[in-house]
Amino acid sequence: MTPDRRKPLEATVAALRDALGADAVRVGDAIGERSMTDWTRHAPTRPAALLLPRSTEDVARALAICHDAYQPVVPQGGMTGLAGGAIPAATDIALALDRFAGVEELDTAAATLTVRAGTTLQVAQEAAIAAGFELALDLGARGSCQIGGNLATNAGGNRVIQSGTARDQVLGLEVVLANGAVLSSLGKMVKNNTGYDLKHWFIGSEGTLGVITRAVLRLHPQRAARHTALVALDGYDAAVALLRRLTQRFGNDIAAFEIMWPDFYDFGVTLTASGRSPFAAAHPLYALIEHAGFDADDAGERFSTALTDALETQTIRDAVIAQSVADARALWAIRECTAEFPVRLDPINFDVSVPIGEIGGFVDRCRAALDRRWPGNVTYFFGHIGDSNLHLTVDGRSVPGVAHDDVYAFVYDMLAPLHGSVSAEHGIGLLKRAYLPVSRSREELAAMAAIKHALDPHGILNPGKVL
Amino acid sequence: MTPDRRKPLEATVAALRDALGADAVRVGDAIGERSMTDWTRHAPTRPAALLLPRSTEDVARALAICHDAYQPVVPQGGMTGLAGGAIPAATDIALALDRFAGVEELDTAAATLTVRAGTTLQVAQEAAIAAGFELALDLGARGSCQIGGNLATNAGGNRVIQSGTARDQVLGLEVVLANGAVLSSLGKMVKNNTGYDLKHWFIGSEGTLGVITRAVLRLHPQRAARHTALVALDGYDAAVALLRRLTQRFGNDIAAFEIMWPDFYDFGVTLTASGRSPFAAAHPLYALIEHAGFDADDAGERFSTALTDALETQTIRDAVIAQSVADARALWAIRECTAEFPVRLDPINFDVSVPIGEIGGFVDRCRAALDRRWPGNVTYFFGHIGDSNLHLTVDGRSVPGVAHDDVYAFVYDMLAPLHGSVSAEHGIGLLKRAYLPVSRSREELAAMAAIKHALDPHGILNPGKVL
Repeated sequence: MTPDRRKPLEATVAALRDALGADAVRVGDAIGERSMTDWTRHAPTRPAALLLPRSTEDVARALAICHDAYQPVVPQGGMTGLAGGAIPAATDIALALDRFAGVEELDTAAATLTVRAGTTLQVAQEAAIAAGFELALDLGARGSCQIGGNLATNAGGNRVIQSGTARDQVLGLEVVLANGAVLSSLGKMVKNNTGYDLKHWFIGSEGTLGVITRAVLRLHPQRAARHTALVALDGYDAAVALLRRLTQRFGNDIAAFEIMWPDFYDFGVTLTASGRSPFAAAHPLYALIEHAGFDADDAGERFSTALTDALETQTIRDAVIAQSVADARALWAIRECTAEFPVRLDPINFDVSVPIGEIGGFVDRCRAALDRRWPGNVTYFFGHIGDSNLHLTVDGRSVPGVAHDDVYAFVYDMLAPLHGSVSAEHGIGLLKRAYLPVSRSREELAAMAAIKHALDPHGILNPGKVL
Repeated sequence: MTPDRRKPLEATVAALRDALGADAVRVGDAIGERSMTDWTRHAPTRPAALLLPRSTEDVARALAICHDAYQPVVPQGGMTGLAGGAIPAATDIALALDRFAGVEELDTAAATLTVRAGTTLQVAQEAAIAAGFELALDLGARGSCQIGGNLATNAGGNRVIQSGTARDQVLGLEVVLANGAVLSSLGKMVKNNTGYDLKHWFIGSEGTLGVITRAVLRLHPQRAARHTALVALDGYDAAVALLRRLTQRFGNDIAAFEIMWPDFYDFGVTLTASGRSPFAAAHPLYALIEHAGFDADDAGERFSTALTDALETQTIRDAVIAQSVADARALWAIRECTAEFPVRLDPINFDVSVPIGEIGGFVDRCRAALDRRWPGNVTYFFGHIGDSNLHLTVDGRSVPGVAHDDVYAFVYDMLAPLHGSVSAEHGIGLLKRAYLPVSRSREELAAMAAIKHALDPHGILNPGKVL
C-alpha cells in the first residue's frame, strides 16, 4: 500500500455507488457494529465504508475501483475470527459477502456442494445433510461464520483428525484478485493437474491475496454410528501410544482425540451439571475419544474391546464409555468448558502446534517456566492432539499487572526451538503478526511478500494483516 | 527467460564445478541416456550439463549461480513422467537429486517420514512399512520414480480415492527457489496457519517455481484386510449409484473403484493367463472394486453382503468376489493390461478428469464422435471413477496417417464445455502445454504467469514447461 497515491475517499465511494448501486455502499452510522470487530472484541473500528456486493461481478467491479484508487479493502465474513483478521482500520473499506449467499448446487454424483462465500457454515451443513451427505467442517461459530471466511482462514475445528481442515474440503474456488480479475476455478474434480493449483494460494491467506466468492466443497458420506469414551492415562507418552493403537485399529473412524491436563480437567468438571468427575480417583492426564463409523449396526463392541485391551495392557488407567447420547454429552461438557473462558477468566489464549511426540515435554517445560516467571499463574492446557494442536489459556487475573503481550512473547519464545507454529488454526490476522517470525524464516517471509506483491501490487487487500 | 542476458555456458559450468566439486558436474558423454527423456520416450536430448548435488546447500549454490547467469535449469527426478516435464533442451542444465536420497527420520509419534527428494518412492514405502505404517502414495513407477518428482507433479496413482494425491501426503516441504534461497518448512504438524501455506505453491508446479529438496510425509496406519470384487453393471448411472452406496457403507475403506468399458475389458481379458472373462455373459460396463479396512478379523462379510444387496436391488447385474490373493491378482490383471499398451498398441493416451456424474455421457459422445471422424478407430475407455479421472487410449494403428496431435485436439475440444481437465494426474509438462487453455482461463494463466515471475524473475526454472 502506497498511502500517498491513494485517491480521495469521497471520489472512491462515489465510484463504488455508481458501480454497485447506492444501497450496496454504506457509510457512517449505517455501518453496524458487526463490521467493526470480531470475536476477539479487539478495538472496534468503524470502516470508512461498507460494501455489500450481490454478485461476483459486483466484487470484481468494487475491487477494480479500489485497486485504481489505491484504496485498502478489508474482506469480511461472519466476523467470528479469533485473530483480528477482518477488523478494519478507520480509513479502510470493508467488503462483506452477506448478500452473496446460498447454495448454488448439490451434485449427488460428484458428491459436491457449490456455495456462495456469504453462506453460513450451518446452512451449508444442513444442505449436505438433507441430501444424505455430511460437510466435514464444523466449528462452534457455525451459525455465524461464513464459508468465505472459513476458507480464507483455513478453519480447523472439530473434525480435523478425521477429515482435515477447511482446505481439504475444497475442490474448486472462485476468487476475485485485487485488480478485479476473476479466477473462476470451480471444477468438481478430485484430480486436476493442469498448472498451478490456484485454490491453495488463497485458502488460508486471510483475505490478503484475493476475495473468495464461491467454492465447490467436497461432501462425505454420513457416519451412522458414534461412540464416546473418557479415558484416564498415566501421562503423555501413554496418550500417544493409545492414539497410535486406536488409529491402527480404526483409521480415521477416530473422530476426536482430545487431551486434557488435570488443571483443565478439574476446572471443566466443576462447570458440568453434576460437578463431579466420572472417575473416583484423580489421574495425570485425560483423553476424550470419539469413534464414528459408517456401520449403523455397530453398537461399539470393537471400540469397547480396544479400550478393554488397553486397560489390560496398562496403556490406560481407567475408562468410561458413554452408554447414551446423554452420557456422551456429559463427557463432552467437560471439554467444552472453554465456552465459559471469556466470562469466567481473563483468557490469554494460545493456539499453537508442535509435533505430536513433543507436546508432552513442551507442556511440562512451559508449565515449569510459567511457574518460575509468574508464581501463582493459573494456566489450562488442552488440545486436539491427533492434529498436533495444543491450546493453552493463561488466566490474566492470576498474573495481575502483566501485559498479555509479555505472556505471548514468553510462551512463543519457548515454541521457537521446536519449530512450532504460533497459530495452528486461528490464523495470524492482526493480533499475531508480530509473532509470525517465531514460526517462519526470513526466506519464507520474503517469499510470501513477493507473492503478495505479485497478486496485489497496490497492496489494497487487507493491509496490515498477516505480513 | 531472457536469452540475450544468458552468460556463456562455459563460465557457468566452471562456476558450478568450483561450487559443487568437479564430480558433481557432468558434460557430454558422461551424461547418461536417463537424463535425456522420460517414459514418454519423447525426443531424447542431451542437456548442456548434468548437476548431481549432494545436499540442499549444493542445490542452493547451483541455483544461485544459474540465476545470476540466466541459465535454464531442468529439475529431474526418476524420469518416469508421462508429460515430458523433465526433458531438457540442449542448452539447459539438468539437475538430478539422485545423490541426495534416503530417509532422514521416521517419527512414530507424529506418524511422519522425513525424506530427501532423491529417495525412490519404493524406498520410502518400505521404510513406512518397516515401522508399522503405510505411505498412501503408490504408482507403477515406484521403483524408479523419486519423491521430489512425485511431489513436483502431484502424482496420483492407485490410492487416490482412499487417501488423496501426493499433495495430501505432505506436511512439510523444503524447496530451493530460483535465486538459491532455501524455504525450509519441514514442520510435522497437521495444523499450521502461520501465513501462506508455501508447500502448496510448489507441489504440482512441475519444477517451474522451485526445486524440492526434502519433505515430511504423513504416514497412515496399515490396512490389515483387503477384499476385491469384479462387478458387472447395466451402465454408467448404475456405477455411480454403486459408488455412492459403497462409500456410504464403507467410507474411504473403498480403496479402488475402477471402471472398464467393454472394449477395454475384452482387450484386458485376452491378455490374462486364462484369456477368459470371469462372467459367462458380456455386460455393458464393469467395475473392479477393492475394500481395504483396518480390522484384521474382517473376512469380508460386510463387503460381500453389500454386493449381494446391490444384486438383489438390481444395482448390479453380477459379481465375482475374490476368494484368495491369487483370485484378486487375476481380477486386477484385467485392469492392468495397460502395462501392455506401449508394446501392443501405438497408444495415444488421455488422462482427463470430468465431474463424476458427467463421465458416462462424455464417454458415449466421445466414442460416437471418434467413430464419425475416424471410422474403424480402436479406443479403450477406463478410469479411476471415484477420483473423477477418465483414461482413454486411442490405438494409433487404427487411425493410420492421423497425427497424434489431431487426436488430442479432437478429444480436448469435446472436454472444454464440461470444464474438464486435460490432465487429471500426469501433469502438463512439455507435451500438453498447448492444451492448457482448454482447462484454464486467460485470467488463471495470467495469475500463474505473475506468480512464476515473482518467484523466478530470470525464468531459469524448467522454461518451456507448463506455462
